[in-house]
This record gives sequence, C-alpha cells and structure tokens, in this order.
Amino acid sequence: MTTTTAHAFDTAISLTDNGIGHHTGQTTPEYANMVGPFGGVTAAAIVRAIERHPERIGEPVALTVNYLAAVTDGDFDIVVRPVRTNRTNQHWTAEVSQEHGPTTTATAVFGVRREAWSDTEALIPAVPEPESIAHTTIPGLVPWMRNYDMHYVAGGVPTDPEESTSSTTTLWVRQRPARVLDFAALTALSDVFYPRVFLRRGRMLPAGTISLTTYFHVDGAELAAQGTDYVLATAHAQRFARGYFDQTAQIWGRDATLLATSHQIVYYKD
Amino acid sequence: MTTTTAHAFDTAISLTDNGIGHHTGQTTPEYANMVGPFGGVTAAAIVRAIERHPERIGEPVALTVNYLAAVTDGDFDIVVRPVRTNRTNQHWTAEVSQEHGPTTTATAVFGVRREAWSDTEALIPAVPEPESIAHTTIPGLVPWMRNYDMHYVAGGVPTDPEESTSSTTTLWVRQRPARVLDFAALTALSDVFYPRVFLRRGRMLPAGTISLTTYFHVDGAELAAQGTDYVLATAHAQRFARGYFDQTAQIWGRDATLLATSHQIVYYKD
Repeated sequence: MTTTTAHAFDTAISLTDNGIGHHTGQTTPEYANMVGPFGGVTAAAIVRAIERHPERIGEPVALTVNYLAAVTDGDFDIVVRPVRTNRTNQHWTAEVSQEHGPTTTATAVFGVRREAWSDTEALIPAVPEPESIAHTTIPGLVPWMRNYDMHYVAGGVPTDPEESTSSTTTLWVRQRPARVLDFAALTALSDVFYPRVFLRRGRMLPAGTISLTTYFHVDGAELAAQGTDYVLATAHAQRFARGYFDQTAQIWGRDATLLATSHQIVYYKD
Repeated sequence: MTTTTAHAFDTAISLTDNGIGHHTGQTTPEYANMVGPFGGVTAAAIVRAIERHPERIGEPVALTVNYLAAVTDGDFDIVVRPVRTNRTNQHWTAEVSQEHGPTTTATAVFGVRREAWSDTEALIPAVPEPESIAHTTIPGLVPWMRNYDMHYVAGGVPTDPEESTSSTTTLWVRQRPARVLDFAALTALSDVFYPRVFLRRGRMLPAGTISLTTYFHVDGAELAAQGTDYVLATAHAQRFARGYFDQTAQIWGRDATLLATSHQIVYYKD
C-alpha cells in the first residue's frame, strides 16, 4: 500500500470549481512571500484555471499578470473568461479577488502551434552544470524559496552590504521536491528571481512586482520532455527609474531549449 | 490669420466622450496597416483614454495590449476602468470593441515617480547620428509607416529575398511631420518595428502582433524634454517557435535616456 501526498505546488494551485470559469483557491504557508503569497504561484493558479476551462483551446502563449494588492492569507476567487476564440488562438481575461476587492488582473493568449520555420536566436549562457555548483541556501529569506533548489551561477542573493554594477542573476533551479515541468510550474519559475534592486544595492529594501508578462515558446510535450531536470534561469534589469525598474528574463532547458522569456516591472523604494 | 491643422496622429487617437471612461474613436486611412489600423495607434488611443479619465493619477508605467481581432475601418468604442488605486499607482483595464465584438483588451499601470536611487544599466547602441544616415523609404509597404521618418541603422526592411542570421533592427525614428513626444506617441513608437520574421526570412509573410507590453521609464516632463527629436529604436527576437516569435525592444532618446522598453509576441505563418 502506498500513500500519495500532493506536491506543495499542486496544493498551492489547487482550485475548487464554482461553475464554468469560476474557482476558489487558498493561500498556503509554504508559498508565502514577505507580504502575501509568491506572485509566481498566483500567476500559476490563473494558468491552471484557464487550462481547466471547457472551452479552452491550445496551450499558453502569453500571460500578463498585474499585482494590484497583496493577496491576504485565506480563500481567493479566480474568474477566467475567454473573450475571443480565433482559428489558432484564444484570448482570455482573468481576475483574482478576495473579500476586500480585486487583487490581481490578468490577460492570456492560448494557442495551437503549427509546423513553421523556427529558430532560437538567443544563446544559452555558458555556465557550469548544476551538479558542479554549491547549493546556495538562504535560510528564511522568504518561505516560498524553500520550494526550489537554487544553484546560483551569478548574482546570488547579496549577503554583504556591497553594491553590484550588474543586475544579472543566473541560476539553475528546479522544484523541491522535484516535479515534472508543466505550464503552471514554468509560469511560477518566470517569477523566481529576487528583486534586481537588491543585487544592485547590496541589500534588501521594499520592492514588489507590479506586472509580469511571460511568453511561452514550447508546447506541453516539449515541456514535459524536460522532466524533473533543472532549468537555467537568467534575469537582468535595463533601467531603475525613480521607483520602478524593469526585469527581463529567460528560462532555458538544460538541453538549450528556450522554454520561456519573461518581463516584469517592479516597484521599489530606496 | 492662421489655420491650425491637427497632426494626423492626434486625429487618429481623437476620442469622443460618451460618459466617464467611455469613448468613441475612428480609424483613419493614414494609420492603416495591412489589415486594420497600425497596432501602435490602437495602443496609443487606449493610453489617451486613460489619461482623460477624471480619476486617473500619475502617468503610464506599464501597458499590455492584446490584439484579439483586426479593428475594421470605422468607429470603435473604448472603455477604460480603474480597477484599483493605491497610494502611488493605479491599475486599469481597457477594452476596445466594435459592432462585431471586442477587438482589443488591455491592462495598464499608471504611477507617480518619487525620488529614489536610479540607474540606467542598459547601454545605448553605438550608432551614427540620424543626420548621417540615408533615409530609407519603403514606398507603399503600409500606409502608417509614412507617418514616421525612419533612418535605418541596421536591419532595414528586406528588399531582396535574402535571409539574415540576425533579427535586430535599429533605427532613428520620429513622427512625420515632427511632433513633440508624449506618452501616446511613445506607446505607438514601441510598435514601430516591422515583423522580425521578415528580416530573418528576407521576405514578407503573414505576421501580426498578438500581445504588446511596454514599460515606461520616464515621466511626462522628461518625455517632453525630448521635443521633436529623433529617438533610437532597437528590437530583436529571441525565439521563433512554430508560429509565434517574441520581440524585445528599447526606445532611447538621443541624449541616451532610456525612454521605454517593450516586448511583444507575434503570430507568423511560414
């Protein structure tokens, strides 16, 4: 006899059906951030809600999630709506709300991939394999980080108050315990970076993602082929401008498949 | 006695008020694309509609526009709604619709900039001044392009059927006739690039933006300081994957101010 325990990630994005496109979820302590849950897990729950909609066609192509207010611990409602279905793609809107009002809005594009000329123009960063890098443990920074094995290649969480001239962080990362990669997990990984301003300033300060956009470059089969292996995640900022900075990121499979590119704008106070 | 004629761009984004947050606009032949209007002008009209809302605070920080269906020639309705107002930022949703249904959805973040440590980490491409570059005229490619003076530094519209190994296009560009830069104009400029797949494949083929995200890095005063000067716009793709490719772009002032960074996912058929 075997007992199966759900992965903490699946628990965190588990949804109750309240009618077509209407769901209730619950925050979990495992995915807590400084204030409210990890933004990546909220984004993942939205992807999961769309995936479960009976009218959904195709797989994620683009997702934009706007963080309006911190999700407070407890229940939250997700409503997803297909606004338009075209021949090969479908446009969605989503809203997460709690008793105190809307906390998160999102738009998504799902689509069907067809045979077409294809090419990866970006180059995977030249880095040592994950097995050769010391595991960077940052005990207690925030709970959600404990759900990932993170092997920093460059730009680890600053522990000394020393400024950096580069905002680039590159790390090998996978879910902990290991879990096969799917779109919900890839969505969460696109928000796996601590705020770039910490690295530049050499210290923690108030910062939070305002809007996150992720573009998916693979289908579900290509994603599943990554199995439970590490992915290489790299991110940097282009400009820090009086309270807002941008971040642009790539998520690569170990086999040099560019799985996703992702962008966000982040509030900071310094 | 002088006669003032509105700039074609202002005509293209001119809106009639139909109550708070409700507007009607009209497509104009000057901003026509292959099918429907130039996506940049639709995005600009959404920004303008939010700017006109009496509850609006601050200036654009982030904008995501999803192109669901071509806008057909004629009237279109824009509805913008402030979903949440925080202390220093405000989250919006927007929808453009016509008789045949919704054509465009959008989310936006407006915000107030405060004094804070700031830095531009990206570097402006090293290129010759716009006055030293031949004006690349592509007669008749699409009407909207005639509203811009475009001086290509790299990656001009391919005229020979020759593939390129790089998807990078860099150009000096300004509105034609010259017009002082504002957020609506900067929004439109973030979509000023012809599809990257044309450059890689050395020919035109079916392609269209599905979702466009722009992050703004300046306030209105910094933007107005650019006057009517050229901006340097550069864009490249990271991956072309079976029907969808991404594009990431920067818009620089001539004084090396990074005005905006922008990203899009584009449908193509090849």
